Amino acid sequence: MFYYGGMTPDLASAGNAEARQAALATLGGQTRELIDAVVLTDVPEDEITAVTAELAALTGRLRTLQRTAPQSFEAGPDGVPRHPGNAVIGSANPHALPLIVESTPERTVRAELAFRPSHEGPPGWVHGGVSAMILDHLLGHAAAVAGSPGMTGTLSVRYRRPVPYGEPLLATAEHTRSEGRKTWVEGRIALPDGTVLVEATGLFITPSGWGRSGPE
Amino acid sequence: MFYYGGMTPDLASAGNAEARQAALATLGGQTRELIDAVVLTDVPEDEITAVTAELAALTGRLRTLQRTAPQSFEAGPDGVPRHPGNAVIGSANPHALPLIVESTPERTVRAELAFRPSHEGPPGWVHGGVSAMILDHLLGHAAAVAGSPGMTGTLSVRYRRPVPYGEPLLATAEHTRSEGRKTWVEGRIALPDGTVLVEATGLFITPSGWGRSGPE
Repeated sequence: MFYYGGMTPDLASAGNAEARQAALATLGGQTRELIDAVVLTDVPEDEITAVTAELAALTGRLRTLQRTAPQSFEAGPDGVPRHPGNAVIGSANPHALPLIVESTPERTVRAELAFRPSHEGPPGWVHGGVSAMILDHLLGHAAAVAGSPGMTGTLSVRYRRPVPYGEPLLATAEHTRSEGRKTWVEGRIALPDGTVLVEATGLFITPSGWGRSGPE
Repeated sequence: MFYYGGMTPDLASAGNAEARQAALATLGGQTRELIDAVVLTDVPEDEITAVTAELAALTGRLRTLQRTAPQSFEAGPDGVPRHPGNAVIGSANPHALPLIVESTPERTVRAELAFRPSHEGPPGWVHGGVSAMILDHLLGHAAAVAGSPGMTGTLSVRYRRPVPYGEPLLATAEHTRSEGRKTWVEGRIALPDGTVLVEATGLFITPSGWGRSGPE
């Protein structure tokens, strides 16, 4: 992942921006529900076709005014950066879980999460690539929280047990060591009882222009 | 090969099944277009809210008859297995790119692909976790094509350059060696000129019940 230490407020200048952002997040969430309904639907073929036509019309309505790129980092009303367009954590991006990462007082990170049917790979289980995607982001966040924001250099994922969807899981990660601009981080996705399902190690590189910064 | 219950025999066996599958793939594709329209939209807040309400209604229509799990592997009309519900390659799963993997006569695999705005991580670039997700799947396919189908044991991803979205890219992978039930595979996502952006090594384990088999 990529982490901006500081960002100047731009769009978030008015109270309207907050309401608009909430509406976009609600749209993102509703589209996520639609995705799983598409994956699970067993309605007749003519109904599938009818719904598809209506989705095309709604897509057209959203496209009448478009950005050239997704919403990226921006300051929220409380000054905390938000990432509404991000593919893994973006509230307004239907592709995102979204992963909601919390920092702990010990400068580690944690995220409660539950995968959905649209994340299936092997029958009944989450796709291994989806677990890797989540861990990449979580480890990058852990590097940033530890004061070493950077780009992923290498990510190594070890699959220990199948990952279920539709159940609460816990992902955690923490900084292990740093050498100059290199930072190593470890993390895992586990059952609530602590049983590790997938674990990962990441090496993050802080670009030379960034320097090291404090935690969020 | 896996079949899910819940589908009535007449739908699963008739020529209707092919038309129905095509309708589901079209629905999946339209929902993908919707996802990117959501990510890029800049329409007024009241229009965002109005579209959200209509999406909720369409979601409800798809849910009137639901499977308990996504469509998994099933035989297509030509006898070739299809994976319409898969999170990475499933034509009927809006979460999937979908990645379309081809086998070569040399028992390697290749996939032409283009990421979309909904895959953004760093501003203007594809999320590193999304690249990892794609490589996990591609390497697993390469292991299978080489005669050693298995589950991912470890996946190591090295990020060399930022990955653009909206541009044609080429992903390739090939078997490197095997020891008993362990198989090593390498792959990468590259620009059309061959410049490697992200590369990965995977260790796949063939479950003891599966044995080694010929290529697909």
